[in-house]
This record gives sequence, C-alpha cells and structure tokens, in this order.
Amino acid sequence: MENMLKQFIDHNIPQLETTMYELVKSIKAPAHLKESMLYSLKAGGKRIRPLFVVAVCEMYNQSLETSYTVGSAVEMIHTYSLIHDDLPSMDDDELRRGKPTNHVVYGEALATLAGDALNTLAFGVIARLNNLSAEKRIELVNLLSVAAGAEGMVGGQVLDMDGEKRLLNLKELETVHVNKTGALLRFSIEAGAVLANASISDREALVEYAHHIGLAFQIQDDILDIEGTSEQLGKTAGKDVASDKSTYPALLTLEGAKQKLDEHYELAIEALQKIDIDTTLLRQFAQYIVRRSN
Amino acid sequence: MENMLKQFIDHNIPQLETTMYELVKSIKAPAHLKESMLYSLKAGGKRIRPLFVVAVCEMYNQSLETSYTVGSAVEMIHTYSLIHDDLPSMDDDELRRGKPTNHVVYGEALATLAGDALNTLAFGVIARLNNLSAEKRIELVNLLSVAAGAEGMVGGQVLDMDGEKRLLNLKELETVHVNKTGALLRFSIEAGAVLANASISDREALVEYAHHIGLAFQIQDDILDIEGTSEQLGKTAGKDVASDKSTYPALLTLEGAKQKLDEHYELAIEALQKIDIDTTLLRQFAQYIVRRSN
Repeated sequence: MENMLKQFIDHNIPQLETTMYELVKSIKAPAHLKESMLYSLKAGGKRIRPLFVVAVCEMYNQSLETSYTVGSAVEMIHTYSLIHDDLPSMDDDELRRGKPTNHVVYGEALATLAGDALNTLAFGVIARLNNLSAEKRIELVNLLSVAAGAEGMVGGQVLDMDGEKRLLNLKELETVHVNKTGALLRFSIEAGAVLANASISDREALVEYAHHIGLAFQIQDDILDIEGTSEQLGKTAGKDVASDKSTYPALLTLEGAKQKLDEHYELAIEALQKIDIDTTLLRQFAQYIVRRSN
Repeated sequence: MENMLKQFIDHNIPQLETTMYELVKSIKAPAHLKESMLYSLKAGGKRIRPLFVVAVCEMYNQSLETSYTVGSAVEMIHTYSLIHDDLPSMDDDELRRGKPTNHVVYGEALATLAGDALNTLAFGVIARLNNLSAEKRIELVNLLSVAAGAEGMVGGQVLDMDGEKRLLNLKELETVHVNKTGALLRFSIEAGAVLANASISDREALVEYAHHIGLAFQIQDDILDIEGTSEQLGKTAGKDVASDKSTYPALLTLEGAKQKLDEHYELAIEALQKIDIDTTLLRQFAQYIVRRSN
C-alpha cells in the first residue's frame, strides 16, 4: 500500500471505530440487542466505505469529526446487509472473516432484529448531526435511503439472487454490481463531497470515480475468488466457480476480467484529473482496491 | 364507531393508500421486489398509525397532503416489522389477516429483503417531502428512527421475545408495549403535531394521549385474544393463553385488565382536555380503540 494511504488508514480507523461503537453503546436498548449489533460491527473488515467518506473530507481539508459519524452510518448499513445475507434463508453462511456469523452466536430471530436496528439507526445518527445544517442532513438521508434500499443495495441483492438461477450477460452483471456494492460506495464518496462542500463539477467527477471504483472492486473480488487462498480471503475461495455463479471471469475469462479491471481503474483515475485539488489519496485508494489480496 | 370518525376514516383511507402504493410503484427497482413490498402493504389492516398522523393535521386544520406521505412512512415501518415477525425464525406465521404471509408467497429471502427495503424507504419518502422545511423533515427522520429502532419498536420486540421464556411482571410488560406498539403510535401522533405546528404544551398533551392510547390498544388486543372469535380477529384467538404468554389478563385477571383499559382511556381523554382546540376526532379515536372487536 502507498505510504500516504497507509498513514491515512492507520490514523483514521481507530477514530472511526470508536465513534461507531459509541453511537451504538449510547442508545437505550436491551443489552443483548446492542451486544448483537456490536458483535457484527466489531467483526472488522476493511472499512472501505467509511474510509471513503473520511478520505474525501481529508482531501478538501475539512474537519473530519462529522465524516466519522456519516462513515459509521454507511458501515451500519453494510453490516446489517451482511447479517441478513448470512441468514440460513439467504446465503446460509456460518463463518464471516473467520468468525461465527451473527445468527450462529445470537440465533436467527435476534440476528434479524439486530440487522433491522442497524438499518434504522444509520438514518438516526445522520439526523442527529447537530453541527451540520438540516439541508445537508436531509440530503444525506435521501442519498443513503436511495443507495441502501430497493433502488440500490437491496435491489442489487435481489438481482444477484436471480443471477444464481441463470447465467447473466455482461450488462446484467454490471447492473447487479452497480447496485449491490456500487451504490453504497458511491454514497460514501458523494457524502464526502456533500460534507466537503465540493463544487457541482467536482462532485460529478467524484461520482464518476466512485462508479468505476465500485466495478473495479467487484471484479477484483471475482478474481480473488479464483486466485486467492481461503486463508488470505478469510472465507472459502473458489466458491463462485463451484456454484456456477455469474462472475466477470466466468463471462470474460480470467484474462478478460483483468483487462476490464484495468479499464475501470484507468477511468477512475481519469475522473480524478477533472478535479483541481490534490487527489493523491483517492488515486492511492484506487490502486489499493485493484491490488488488494483480500 | 362515532359518526365524525367514521366519515374521517372513510374519506382518508383511500387517499392514504393511493399515496402509499404510488410511493412504492414510482421507485426504480426489480419488479418482483416491488410486488412483494406492495403485497404486504396492500394486505390491509386498520391503518391506525397513518390515520393518527392525518387526524392530528385535520384537527389543526392543516393541509393533509404531507400527512399522507408521513403516514405512509410509518405504515411502511409497521408493515416491514410484520413481514419479519412472521418469518419462520420469528413467529412462524403462515396467515395474516386471512392471507398467506409474505414469505409463504415470495420465499423467505425475498420477504426479508422486501422488509429491509420498506424500512429504508420510509426514511427516503420523508426526506423527499420538498414542501416541508429541512428542519421538520430532519426532526421527523430522527423521531422515526428512535421510534422504529433499538430504542423503540425493535427493542420492544426483543423484550417481547424474552417474555416468551418467563412470566413478566406488570412493569416489564408495560415496558414491552410502550416500545413494541407504543413507540410507533406515539411517533404518528407526534409527527402530526410537528406537521401541524402545534405548540409545545399541545405537543406534550398529545404525547401523553399517545402514551395511554398505546397501552389501551395493547390491553384491548390482549382482551380480544380471550373474548374475540378467530373469525372476528382474522387470526387464531386464544393463542396467548395457549402459549402462556405474558399478557394483561394473565397478570391482572380479565376484570383487572378491563379496569386498566378504562384507566388508560380516561387518562388519554384527560390529556386532550389540556388542548384548546376541538379534539372530538381524537376523543372518538380513543373510544374506537377501546371498543373495537378486531
């Protein structure tokens, strides 16, 4: 990982996580419900979505306090989607990042409700950001609702389920990922632009960057499922091929998928060149996403 | 039912439902996801929560347009909670209001996701109320997040699950219901007060009314489970007794529960007397809630 990005991540993840855990600890709710919510939030992961919110604010020299809370909101949405996705009626996964999944520890009923509570809490923590104007808070609530709901992430999960029954074509596969993983990544980067008062043209360039980074992220996920080891990934490698899932390598061959990855990486970097400030941090973030091994 | 209330309900339910269905139809999402969301929204019910939002606005002579959308948001939250509650891992109900439950028709995975999407959409439709100030929209988003989440409805469901394992005392039972059903009723009435620009003292009186109406509603539910027929209720009567569930009649005897119902009804009516405008509509609403037979 490039040096500037590494420093940025090492510095900001602890503050981000402290903020996020405190937002859950401070609510008045049954102890085991909070425990179940915190269990999955603490299960780790790369924190890519919240780091994007913070990174955009950092790039525009904004105070980062608010970005930790907005980042926490998007991580709550991401985490609830994983809890529900792991349920026996969905992907039926018993392990995630090497740890037992939420329903294995707390039972299906509490896991379902912990997911629901995280979904709802995400909107509450944005609404309570008193140092941000009501206009900006409402804009963020609206963007998050669209990105997380039927028009975004949840819609993408539904399309992805359909894709398990038949082989999708490239356009359909792209639609799945633009929604399933792309929508929250786009929200993260656009939310950073809202917090940083970025100009309309900067914001458009950032959204374009987000679009290509989202697709690059997914293609690299598909490639890692083939080239990575289960140990590296913290989950079973080779699962996509074994289940005949629609993936970029399945549609384009492994070489074709790598070429597609490079294309989206290049387009993401090009989008950044439309912005007049120093965008090194997001350039390094793009490299990290396409080169990561887990 | 009293005449004024009957007219109010007959006039407003069609407009409310038209608004609510349109809010789902107009989003860009996979067709069968929208179908599953609409299936449960259209399964009917008394629409008590949205009618409370509209009733408060009507009482203060406000335009009702916005209240249909805010009412739709709270009905979306209520509906998603029923979809998830009916899942095999929760209450495992195959019928609701005489119709097959969502997961029976669409499968557990899609039912889970339709619930998630309704939860998220509720916040989006409030955020997009462009004829309402950003300050009011943010206040409503915050109130709804608290009422619907771990601090309110979801927290109450968790406490209710705990109550299935042991007999609760009266204070614990009240805490369950103040959260599980009370929080959304309170939101509905308080949201009406926000939309109607009610004074602080009026708003406090309305919240007090909501508190007692919420408990009266639940006590009448418990009484109907004993005195009602399955045909009247549209669900199996006598289920609470059969399952040894903590209820008001179980703790207080049937007569004691009826006395408690009257007490909360009287306190709700007393709260309304602190308000200077004509509150006939909410008085009749209170009567309807304690006298209803389903």
